[in-house]
Amino acid sequence: MTIERVAIVGLGLIGGSVGLAVQQMLPGMATTGWDADADVRQRAAGRRLVGEVCDTVAQAVRGADLVILCVPVGAMGYAAEAIAPHLEPGTIVSDVGSSKRSVGDALAAALPNAIVIPAHPVAGTENSGPDAGFPELFRHRWCIVTPGKDTPPDAVDALTRFWEGLGATVEIMDAEHHDLVLAVTSHIPHLIAYTIVGTASDLEDVTRGEVIKYSAGGFRDFTRIAASNPTMWRDVFLSNRDAVLEVLGRFTEDLSRLQRAIRNGDGDTLFDLFDKTRTIRRSIIEEGQDDARPDFGRGDH
Amino acid sequence: MTIERVAIVGLGLIGGSVGLAVQQMLPGMATTGWDADADVRQRAAGRRLVGEVCDTVAQAVRGADLVILCVPVGAMGYAAEAIAPHLEPGTIVSDVGSSKRSVGDALAAALPNAIVIPAHPVAGTENSGPDAGFPELFRHRWCIVTPGKDTPPDAVDALTRFWEGLGATVEIMDAEHHDLVLAVTSHIPHLIAYTIVGTASDLEDVTRGEVIKYSAGGFRDFTRIAASNPTMWRDVFLSNRDAVLEVLGRFTEDLSRLQRAIRNGDGDTLFDLFDKTRTIRRSIIEEGQDDARPDFGRGDH
Repeated sequence: MTIERVAIVGLGLIGGSVGLAVQQMLPGMATTGWDADADVRQRAAGRRLVGEVCDTVAQAVRGADLVILCVPVGAMGYAAEAIAPHLEPGTIVSDVGSSKRSVGDALAAALPNAIVIPAHPVAGTENSGPDAGFPELFRHRWCIVTPGKDTPPDAVDALTRFWEGLGATVEIMDAEHHDLVLAVTSHIPHLIAYTIVGTASDLEDVTRGEVIKYSAGGFRDFTRIAASNPTMWRDVFLSNRDAVLEVLGRFTEDLSRLQRAIRNGDGDTLFDLFDKTRTIRRSIIEEGQDDARPDFGRGDH
Repeated sequence: MTIERVAIVGLGLIGGSVGLAVQQMLPGMATTGWDADADVRQRAAGRRLVGEVCDTVAQAVRGADLVILCVPVGAMGYAAEAIAPHLEPGTIVSDVGSSKRSVGDALAAALPNAIVIPAHPVAGTENSGPDAGFPELFRHRWCIVTPGKDTPPDAVDALTRFWEGLGATVEIMDAEHHDLVLAVTSHIPHLIAYTIVGTASDLEDVTRGEVIKYSAGGFRDFTRIAASNPTMWRDVFLSNRDAVLEVLGRFTEDLSRLQRAIRNGDGDTLFDLFDKTRTIRRSIIEEGQDDARPDFGRGDH
């Protein structure tokens, strides 16, 4: 099974990066694209995010071997219904959403004649929209693919080779386990970052100017994450509710324990945790998942 | 009042960076230093963190116009008692600790004949120890100085010029207000980061290997902060207990509200917060307090 023509629906940070990466790294493959927003289509054409930006979603997906839906998780069902009448049977339809069980269900329901293979490249930045993408976004990153039990193996292989061609390493995983793992490594970190930035903005005794001025003490790191696309993240939390609430429950229990330690002056409990958490940073750097330079290699600014 | 000789007690990340910065940016000023750990003294001498690494704290502070204590907040009182017998009356004694009211009290009690001026350069990295410092650490950063009501203004001016000489901008502030502002912009972000990294390490259903592998989804940012010096941070939470518990209470209230919104499928509440928090990021970048490049300008790794 060979992919010769890929259609990208949704031309924001991820869709645009996929288009740029295919054109640079898989030059034999044709790329078409469409976005529901006419302004985004125009900017996408200007940046040549795909070989051909189409005026309708029907034109974009016609004749494609692979369609990748790069829209917020909550819009996946609508996007699938929009492409359904225009697909040839046996077209592979995949996506890039951050939660997988609900997306898989929505795509399967809307596309009974397509080969649905949900996927999630674990990559991104805090920027969004058609001007934010770049072709190297997926390089040295993981892409989790969550096929169903009955998915044809050659279609899974074809999608795997596609993502490997963009520089990613593919991991096959059960959709439910994906949703739990990502709740820990991505969804809860975002929820916490959004919360603390909101808390800091609303205090009476500390001004926003002070928060901004002294943000280099740690807070500024959270503001980067809390600058991510609000629609995308609203949909992630609503679509992965069970796993998010489960991990959030663990987090708040652990936080209460530290709160008690601080109130009681129990330095040993604090030290033991703070000492333990250093080792995980070392492993992340050893495995090439972050920049080893202090402060992420932030420049002088 | 002119500072011609500065003694640095504690030669870790901050003390070492002060020593390197003075030698590079204020070359007329003599620097001496001491650390309680003989191994640190040896490494400090090897890196030439100060002009002269002394064998005893008495030698280090003798004849100094300014002594800066660069030890964990919980050790400030002990360090002050150690230097007390060796100071000439009227020596300025300052520090670099992250909480100011408790440090100010400890220094004032131990050093009745010195001019005590607590200070806090809002700068650092996740690394610690004598190999971690570099002379540019304070450039374009704020240094908060918290003099008492009776502190001689010319001594405050001398300390202000000192920090400005190292590239920082000085802000004079009440110690109690400092402790509240930093609880928001630094202490609570660290506490939350330590907690989530601990929570993720202890789950049964998600392995540490998975947490590390998929950390690029947001989690890795928290591991950087949670790799900070555990002794330093234990002391910060114990010494700034009231302000930390106050801000933590606000944070957990806000988090409960989002938890309810997720449980109830209330997307509007989520969107409104996620949309609002973007603006503060923009201000932080406009004011030069963070790197404007996506993902902090992280390199390919």
